[in-house]
Amino acid sequence: MLYFESDYMEGAHETVLQRLIETNLEQVSGYGKDHYCDSAKEKIKAACNCPDADIYFLVGGTQTNQLIIDTMLTPYEGVIAADTGHVSLHEAGAIEYTGHKVLTLPQHNGKIRADELDAFIRTFWQDDNHEHMTFPGMVYISHPTEYGTLYTSAELEHISAICRAYQIPLYLDGARLGYGLMSYQTDVTLQQIARCCDAFYIGGTKVGALCGEAVVFTHHNAPKYFITRMKQHGALLAKGRLLGIQFDTLFTDDLYFKISRHAIDMAELLKKGFQEKGYEFYLDSPTNQQFIILKDEDLIRLKKQVVCSFWEKPDEDHTVVRFATSWATQKEDIEKLMEVL
Amino acid sequence: MLYFESDYMEGAHETVLQRLIETNLEQVSGYGKDHYCDSAKEKIKAACNCPDADIYFLVGGTQTNQLIIDTMLTPYEGVIAADTGHVSLHEAGAIEYTGHKVLTLPQHNGKIRADELDAFIRTFWQDDNHEHMTFPGMVYISHPTEYGTLYTSAELEHISAICRAYQIPLYLDGARLGYGLMSYQTDVTLQQIARCCDAFYIGGTKVGALCGEAVVFTHHNAPKYFITRMKQHGALLAKGRLLGIQFDTLFTDDLYFKISRHAIDMAELLKKGFQEKGYEFYLDSPTNQQFIILKDEDLIRLKKQVVCSFWEKPDEDHTVVRFATSWATQKEDIEKLMEVL
Amino acid sequence: MLYFESDYMEGAHETVLQRLIETNLEQVSGYGKDHYCDSAKEKIKAACNCPDADIYFLVGGTQTNQLIIDTMLTPYEGVIAADTGHVSLHEAGAIEYTGHKVLTLPQHNGKIRADELDAFIRTFWQDDNHEHMTFPGMVYISHPTEYGTLYTSAELEHISAICRAYQIPLYLDGARLGYGLMSYQTDVTLQQIARCCDAFYIGGTKVGALCGEAVVFTHHNAPKYFITRMKQHGALLAKGRLLGIQFDTLFTDDLYFKISRHAIDMAELLKKGFQEKGYEFYLDSPTNQQFIILKDEDLIRLKKQVVCSFWEKPDEDHTVVRFATSWATQKEDIEKLMEVL
Amino acid sequence: MLYFESDYMEGAHETVLQRLIETNLEQVSGYGKDHYCDSAKEKIKAACNCPDADIYFLVGGTQTNQLIIDTMLTPYEGVIAADTGHVSLHEAGAIEYTGHKVLTLPQHNGKIRADELDAFIRTFWQDDNHEHMTFPGMVYISHPTEYGTLYTSAELEHISAICRAYQIPLYLDGARLGYGLMSYQTDVTLQQIARCCDAFYIGGTKVGALCGEAVVFTHHNAPKYFITRMKQHGALLAKGRLLGIQFDTLFTDDLYFKISRHAIDMAELLKKGFQEKGYEFYLDSPTNQQFIILKDEDLIRLKKQVVCSFWEKPDEDHTVVRFATSWATQKEDIEKLMEVL
Repeated sequence: MLYFESDYMEGAHETVLQRLIETNLEQVSGYGKDHYCDSAKEKIKAACNCPDADIYFLVGGTQTNQLIIDTMLTPYEGVIAADTGHVSLHEAGAIEYTGHKVLTLPQHNGKIRADELDAFIRTFWQDDNHEHMTFPGMVYISHPTEYGTLYTSAELEHISAICRAYQIPLYLDGARLGYGLMSYQTDVTLQQIARCCDAFYIGGTKVGALCGEAVVFTHHNAPKYFITRMKQHGALLAKGRLLGIQFDTLFTDDLYFKISRHAIDMAELLKKGFQEKGYEFYLDSPTNQQFIILKDEDLIRLKKQVVCSFWEKPDEDHTVVRFATSWATQKEDIEKLMEVL
Repeated sequence: MLYFESDYMEGAHETVLQRLIETNLEQVSGYGKDHYCDSAKEKIKAACNCPDADIYFLVGGTQTNQLIIDTMLTPYEGVIAADTGHVSLHEAGAIEYTGHKVLTLPQHNGKIRADELDAFIRTFWQDDNHEHMTFPGMVYISHPTEYGTLYTSAELEHISAICRAYQIPLYLDGARLGYGLMSYQTDVTLQQIARCCDAFYIGGTKVGALCGEAVVFTHHNAPKYFITRMKQHGALLAKGRLLGIQFDTLFTDDLYFKISRHAIDMAELLKKGFQEKGYEFYLDSPTNQQFIILKDEDLIRLKKQVVCSFWEKPDEDHTVVRFATSWATQKEDIEKLMEVL
Repeated sequence: MLYFESDYMEGAHETVLQRLIETNLEQVSGYGKDHYCDSAKEKIKAACNCPDADIYFLVGGTQTNQLIIDTMLTPYEGVIAADTGHVSLHEAGAIEYTGHKVLTLPQHNGKIRADELDAFIRTFWQDDNHEHMTFPGMVYISHPTEYGTLYTSAELEHISAICRAYQIPLYLDGARLGYGLMSYQTDVTLQQIARCCDAFYIGGTKVGALCGEAVVFTHHNAPKYFITRMKQHGALLAKGRLLGIQFDTLFTDDLYFKISRHAIDMAELLKKGFQEKGYEFYLDSPTNQQFIILKDEDLIRLKKQVVCSFWEKPDEDHTVVRFATSWATQKEDIEKLMEVL
Repeated sequence: MLYFESDYMEGAHETVLQRLIETNLEQVSGYGKDHYCDSAKEKIKAACNCPDADIYFLVGGTQTNQLIIDTMLTPYEGVIAADTGHVSLHEAGAIEYTGHKVLTLPQHNGKIRADELDAFIRTFWQDDNHEHMTFPGMVYISHPTEYGTLYTSAELEHISAICRAYQIPLYLDGARLGYGLMSYQTDVTLQQIARCCDAFYIGGTKVGALCGEAVVFTHHNAPKYFITRMKQHGALLAKGRLLGIQFDTLFTDDLYFKISRHAIDMAELLKKGFQEKGYEFYLDSPTNQQFIILKDEDLIRLKKQVVCSFWEKPDEDHTVVRFATSWATQKEDIEKLMEVL
């Protein structure tokens, strides 16, 4: 069986695991107050060229989105997101659970458009009844998006400028950030993200770690008593070292970027293979997730040898499926897949 | 100045007020446990032909929507509503404040369509990832809608059948229910609403009361310990008599229906006047709210003598405004308005 | 039957009712933006000698406590209250429903002690683990308390000074404020309350109104977009005039104070009666609620002619009951009660 | 430096870590749907002699308490706990954050007493006003408690019987369960806990795992759609294998119990040492946490060579400190500590 179901099917990159072993019996304080966390933070700040960052480590993506959005918003505010955004659709209402509305904009290949964002906020403030409505309090974008697509540098700058004009924070969900930054077709850098956003997270779970996401507040703007808010959300890990050691390793010798590039190389191989065999793409993704439209009968046949993810049904006879590569994808598995196709 | 701004600009119908005066010094228990509340409940049950109803009195519309939706849903569920539904747009996130997502369907003249509702729920259950999504847990409709429009009897039955097929409750927001029931162009009755819905409320605030909405759970399905839930929401009135006496009066000698009919008569006059003078309607409303598209220059002129509500801007040069009649509208004010136009 | 069950058994003071009648058909804007609300606010500011106050009108006591506490606290903070405080015990968890903990101090005749308050907050800040605890974010006192007792001027000043030293707001629940201010045995004035507290409310429901509480933020410190927060809590009344007109009347010609004084006069008569007949008091209350310890057999006999409230059972054979007077209490009912005893 | 600060200062037991390495590149599905989770569940069911258990794996203790309590309660209910319970004091209000009140009983060496529990619930139901109060909806106990103490078998049975009489669930926080079960002085077994409780968790974070707690619902009583509730709380780990593999290893060859016993052996050594040197104990703890009362001057001296935890200040001149042993404690560190003392 060949597995392309997701980018979180294996454990951790071996270098990360090795470091956990080496440090295992060292005694350190809990709750993220250990020197590994400190060291990881310094390395991330350097990588982001963002000396004023406040950095915290959390365990998972939905937890991170929920905590960041809840703590950066005031209670009468909601978060603007694409209607296909992870926070809109696939977090089981985790944002609403904290009392905040997700205000949706139409998606365009998974992305929001700056002009539509601007119009949405402007319309809100012009509405005589806006005191009876949810205030737009921040903007959420994912990069790569849930469809593997990427904002261009110009798009990111434009969205950032609108957020600053309206004085609301821009937050970027980087669950697969490494795969976005290492795409062959991107002009967005980590440093630029740190400049354009007020908060973002660098995904570890899908990029080489057992678990873990690094939250970056880019200008000493972490919500007050953030540790307490983490605790209140059940999101403060006792053995914070587990996250610190992993991110310290991922940000040593560019490991995070190197393994991300590997996933992109594998995705490009996959993409090329699908293209050559004449498969229809649902959209053009420049990252590690590739969406293919299959006839249902072909899908049934394929499923005997390959595991991929159901995405949606565009019509009665076809299915959109996702193939994901990752830091752990073996080149020979791609080759085997091509034989199967 | 002529006021058509809303249907809650005056106090209460004089019969209601008179009854408050007559009963003022009678000593009764608090929290809705008085005989006026009991009497009002019986009269409402009779009017709805719904002997199995559980009835409670609340103060306002958003409070009612928030409480009903929060207590009828389990915490992992959301409420389906039109994207222009009051709970979607104009309650300042009151539903999300209680932890529940509003799942939106496209509006069609303010209404949801049964086929789109069916498809939405079916797609949810067919999605392999639905455990990561908000469960559709009830359906919210407003009747009249926020645009003054009405469901037909067939539409209501269809939506109700879908809800029952999926075993989720149907809830009807009747903030202006009287004006819907007394429309010249409706085939929906109060008894039918009680049969088709699992819960609904009969609006008092906009139909002759100082304040107050009567919540009807149609088949002894009030959420357990509902009084406690009211208290927990800050929605339990100490002097419950205030609500009981008003509804008891409104449901004596068909007062609720008679005064609602007056508002409809006035609205039809208004509508006819606008039609004769060639004004453009935003949509065809059969109830007490009429939406007119005005040139901005005309609107500016009109505002010197008439107060109406801003609704939205369809383009740069025009504005949609709302004229509302109510139980208190004077015929001569309509005539004066016609002169002004 | 004689009713001393509570102070919210009748409708409204006749002057208040009269004013509702007179103004009934005047057309005014909704949501508290009418001139009666404006006028009432000015009169309250004058009565409090507090020109910098922000004033809002709400419908009921639990709603008010929930909204004030939720909006004045940041989400990681809790409110300090006596363990017998209304917010601690008798609001069905309305504070916790908004996500905030009630941090309890021992009650002393219903009151908290300044030294214990000081120690509680100091201990919190000295605790190495306080980041894992709920932050004390405001202080709640009721005046009169749930036991009818009153803070002295010195006690109030002391508590206020502690709050200011720790920079947390002091909030006073004045559900029965009139009865406290008009007590024969108080040295606390309304102006002093306005000086000592950051927020408080002047209870209308129990003091002459059909419903309504006037919230006073004493130094332009109303939480941002408070109207939106009211809406979000389901606490924004469409016909705000109902509250404005009532408070405008209550604060005209000292009506609020005169009717409160009447209740106190009646309570003192009642108290004297009980004393002369040798009844045992649960505690010494200087306001309109009197707590008497009865043998259960006496209580059973009394209940045939008199309605009073169960309070608690101090032992197997006795019951503490409450007799409440109000603005509406008839002197002859007191006299009849004395005959019955 | 000698570290006795807590029982979560090291990584994971080497057997656990070894297993993570061995399985690292195996590809499995996410979100706990892998065979390691399945296998771990079966082993835990066997160890608990509880074939009807529903088992889920979570990441940390506060997350677990928050999720279990929130999902087992209906929204109008609160959880009863000792006033020193972890959920009462040291979770930053995580329970209240989900809308539920913690109803506190006095602690007795960290434990609640069955008779006081019974009286509390009985009093609630007898109170005429209980509809205005938070309903007692479940009971929380920790075993070992926050003070290292243990319920006896008889106490546990008694508390369980009361819960069943009132038909509310009993939930046991087993963050340090292994250390409780392996105490020299306990007559409580894991099987008995599974019989007496409706839910409990087996702590991994403090007993040999990198992170992780195993939640046991003892009679197919997991809250409906529990995976969705986990997701909604941000508590659903993408790489569920991380938890499954660890618990599978801990429940293979009694590893969990053997390493817990080691911690107890070390604690008994420590205790004996303190006793022989005449130190004063704050209370008699039969588990891995020992609480010693030190003169502040002695504490200052000690801190130069030893790290222990501040607990509380019983008076101006003394401090209660905690020494914790764990699965990782080295015997020679205990010996060195004894030399230092």
